[in-house]
Amino acid sequence: MTTIALAQINLLVGDIAGNARQVIACADRLRGSADIVVFPELTLTGYPPEDLLLRPACDARVAAALHDIAAAAVGVTLVIGYPAVRDGVRYNVAGVLRDGVVEAEYRKMQLPNYSVFDERRYFEPGANAVVFVQNGVRFGLSVCEDIWFDAPVQRAAAAGAQVLLNLNASPFHEGKGQERETLVADRAARFGVAVVYVNLVGGQDELVFDGSSFVVDAGGELKHRAGQFSVSETLVGFEDAVPQAGEIAPFAEREAQIYAALVLGTRDYVRKIGFRSVVLGLSGGIDSALTLAIAVDALGAENIEVVSMPSRYTADISNADALRQAELLGVAHQTISIEPAFEAFLGMLAETFAGTEPDATEENIQARCRGIVLMAISNKRGRMLLTTGNKSEMSVGYATLYGDMAGGFAPLKDVHKTLVYALSRWRNRDAEVIPQRVIERPPSAELRPDQKDTDSLPDYELLDAILVRYVEHDHSVDEIVDEGYPRADVERIARMVDSNEYKRRQAPPGVKITRRAYGRDRRYPIVNGF
Amino acid sequence: MTTIALAQINLLVGDIAGNARQVIACADRLRGSADIVVFPELTLTGYPPEDLLLRPACDARVAAALHDIAAAAVGVTLVIGYPAVRDGVRYNVAGVLRDGVVEAEYRKMQLPNYSVFDERRYFEPGANAVVFVQNGVRFGLSVCEDIWFDAPVQRAAAAGAQVLLNLNASPFHEGKGQERETLVADRAARFGVAVVYVNLVGGQDELVFDGSSFVVDAGGELKHRAGQFSVSETLVGFEDAVPQAGEIAPFAEREAQIYAALVLGTRDYVRKIGFRSVVLGLSGGIDSALTLAIAVDALGAENIEVVSMPSRYTADISNADALRQAELLGVAHQTISIEPAFEAFLGMLAETFAGTEPDATEENIQARCRGIVLMAISNKRGRMLLTTGNKSEMSVGYATLYGDMAGGFAPLKDVHKTLVYALSRWRNRDAEVIPQRVIERPPSAELRPDQKDTDSLPDYELLDAILVRYVEHDHSVDEIVDEGYPRADVERIARMVDSNEYKRRQAPPGVKITRRAYGRDRRYPIVNGF
Repeated sequence: MTTIALAQINLLVGDIAGNARQVIACADRLRGSADIVVFPELTLTGYPPEDLLLRPACDARVAAALHDIAAAAVGVTLVIGYPAVRDGVRYNVAGVLRDGVVEAEYRKMQLPNYSVFDERRYFEPGANAVVFVQNGVRFGLSVCEDIWFDAPVQRAAAAGAQVLLNLNASPFHEGKGQERETLVADRAARFGVAVVYVNLVGGQDELVFDGSSFVVDAGGELKHRAGQFSVSETLVGFEDAVPQAGEIAPFAEREAQIYAALVLGTRDYVRKIGFRSVVLGLSGGIDSALTLAIAVDALGAENIEVVSMPSRYTADISNADALRQAELLGVAHQTISIEPAFEAFLGMLAETFAGTEPDATEENIQARCRGIVLMAISNKRGRMLLTTGNKSEMSVGYATLYGDMAGGFAPLKDVHKTLVYALSRWRNRDAEVIPQRVIERPPSAELRPDQKDTDSLPDYELLDAILVRYVEHDHSVDEIVDEGYPRADVERIARMVDSNEYKRRQAPPGVKITRRAYGRDRRYPIVNGF
Repeated sequence: MTTIALAQINLLVGDIAGNARQVIACADRLRGSADIVVFPELTLTGYPPEDLLLRPACDARVAAALHDIAAAAVGVTLVIGYPAVRDGVRYNVAGVLRDGVVEAEYRKMQLPNYSVFDERRYFEPGANAVVFVQNGVRFGLSVCEDIWFDAPVQRAAAAGAQVLLNLNASPFHEGKGQERETLVADRAARFGVAVVYVNLVGGQDELVFDGSSFVVDAGGELKHRAGQFSVSETLVGFEDAVPQAGEIAPFAEREAQIYAALVLGTRDYVRKIGFRSVVLGLSGGIDSALTLAIAVDALGAENIEVVSMPSRYTADISNADALRQAELLGVAHQTISIEPAFEAFLGMLAETFAGTEPDATEENIQARCRGIVLMAISNKRGRMLLTTGNKSEMSVGYATLYGDMAGGFAPLKDVHKTLVYALSRWRNRDAEVIPQRVIERPPSAELRPDQKDTDSLPDYELLDAILVRYVEHDHSVDEIVDEGYPRADVERIARMVDSNEYKRRQAPPGVKITRRAYGRDRRYPIVNGF
């Protein structure tokens, strides 16, 4: 009998010494109950370390950490990930630490260089399988992307591996957990190896890692699954090379998974940056309402401050709904009218703008007055400002730079408006957290009299359907029209997406939850004649 | 005798049909005077096309453009660059178009995936040399990075190439022109091939391509050099495979090159986005003064509007110097005091901030009031807002998000403060463009009484020296201290650089002129425990 621990932990990118301390603490806790502890990919640097890997000091710190961890690898075998320069070449390594030494190093063969991944910027691929024996069982090694390809698994199996340990830093998007298991089960069955899949948990900038570590047997059958979005140390017993059945944590429904990703991504971003509390503008609209719910679940009501900032165009029910939600959730609330500043700017610009008609300029001034108020509170009290915009708005530029786009983090950046509604309804499933009227009112930016979002944009159902096809699936205008969408809308939306890249480039980060988010995931030129 | 034209042209990324029209116009102009016209790398998409390459519509448009260009390749051979999917794999190709058909395609072997480059995200490497014969001379092909390595040149020479045509999209940084020539001359001499090096010219987002196309003979001797930062069609005669001597445009002095890069990068960004004019805040300080000089040289005084926005802390001579420069350069100038808005915000926040002391919050409010005024003018008049911050400030976060950082483009983003001074003196070499007093006064943000930059920052000579070592050379704090810099300063500056990544992530783009600029060139995590 061999016991393997799946160390599904939350690391801090760049904090090599701190991550090493986590590994050592884990080893100390599990020594005696586990024979082997498997950690996520690039355990020591966290993932993705990006250009920190290019700092020579990074290598020195990894070497020092390895030395300390090896000393703890007595009475327990530790399998950890780290970058390693060997013969002048940097590899993404899974190391086996046993009996006080680094006994073996496996070099990742498949280096992802698509989507958010840039691994060929840093690493060269390895070529050789590595197998080590413990309690008579032969364990092979692999790192993340390796298991999405046949060759690394085939080589491990050919080298005699009975159980493949797979170290991961696999970011979440909707449906990713099932995708992984389907693929790994197929790989396991085809090559006749059991697979221990260990994933990171936690947020890092725009990514959130969901954990969901699991074990399949050599027939591809699921034997264990750790929880999603939470740290855990799962112990899995093996009879020879056969994993014994254990707990399979269920996947929650779609909205629950996405909501949990947003909460974890927001919490980790705020806390890992060094903030404890946040401020946000509460307008009475649904985006800020959902953002507030997420913030409360992420950081606790006592760490949240909300500000309502009415203008001449704000409906009374907006103020009332904002206040009601603040009371429902027990967060600090204040109201600051933006009228004095708005009036001041109109006066300052009266001569310059003489003879012109009001247009988006005056709307933007209002949004920017709110940005100044919120940033002032953020600066004065040391609270991070959360922005409340959603992916539909960010796609078409229906947002004001330095106004409602101002802030340190945008929880809904990758959430389409239709999903904002679905998540709001889901969050209200047991009790009213978002006032029902906020969900039911037609959305409005309230920047001019009787404004509705639909004055400037198509219906959100239509908008989001077109956006998914254009942005996430790279369909052309003609293809989307062929799928049954009105040409005028499709052309206009495609043009808006392309021409608003400059706004997105100055937007704060937010949690990636779709197959293609804005940010590192979608690299478009700003100057673009396509 | 064979005549080769070096088509050093300025393309628009993504505008495949428009770029094809440029190629055809060039062919029509040169038919009869040139036997072969060589264009830059990825001629049809422009460079870098980034994720536009992932759109299936891109391939269709390239195929259509190729068809049109091939029809023009009669009586002249055209060598152009484009992405090409062949057997399901995308390559970065140099195609030979002759007698109405695409006669041969060379696939780039070396795909850069460092610095600003992401070519492994899009392309697979080729493996084979391609040689074509014209007038009895054997011409080999290569694309950009290929010539920085031995293998592609060696294979071309082994395949019989006497002259290597090298299609480039090589971005400028200080000293890059000489670097390229030294390296290519060495490669030519070692493998005994003449090299025709054709580079793109123009700005694309943060990159500026400087042209400086050239020809070396098989002994590595420089025979021709086209101008830097300007479009040109240079004709080079070859006796058999031997390039005849021609004009060698001199490299200008360091400041002249950098200034020209900033002017071209700014002009192309503004115009290619579709703007004709800009607005900027003129404070009486040196950063905005140099930015104005660049803007005038890039776009013409008639397309520039400047605004001075004094507060209670603005010195009279700041206002006077701003006005004087506006008069010197003949740009539209107005003065709008920010006091009414600043007062309004202080009043609106009085209750919230009761009992607190003034701090950076109030300074930021002033900077943000200026941002609102400038953005209002930008919005109302359709002028792009230029921001005036420099690289030293951006490195340590000595700038206000949504305040002085607001804007569409930042000409000085990659220019350290010490270089701002050098460029200002250089620009004043013949006549006063920047009032001399602006260059001589100690710099101040003027956000509180008697403020000087040196209250918060080390002397700029010291700051910039440390920044170059930490940011551009990846030296560690210990190494920089060993080089003779005070530990307290080095530690503080390194910490400021790391902790201000969040500000840079929301900064507008600007022209890359150093080996490592902020942006695509330096990919750091925001959450960073290093």
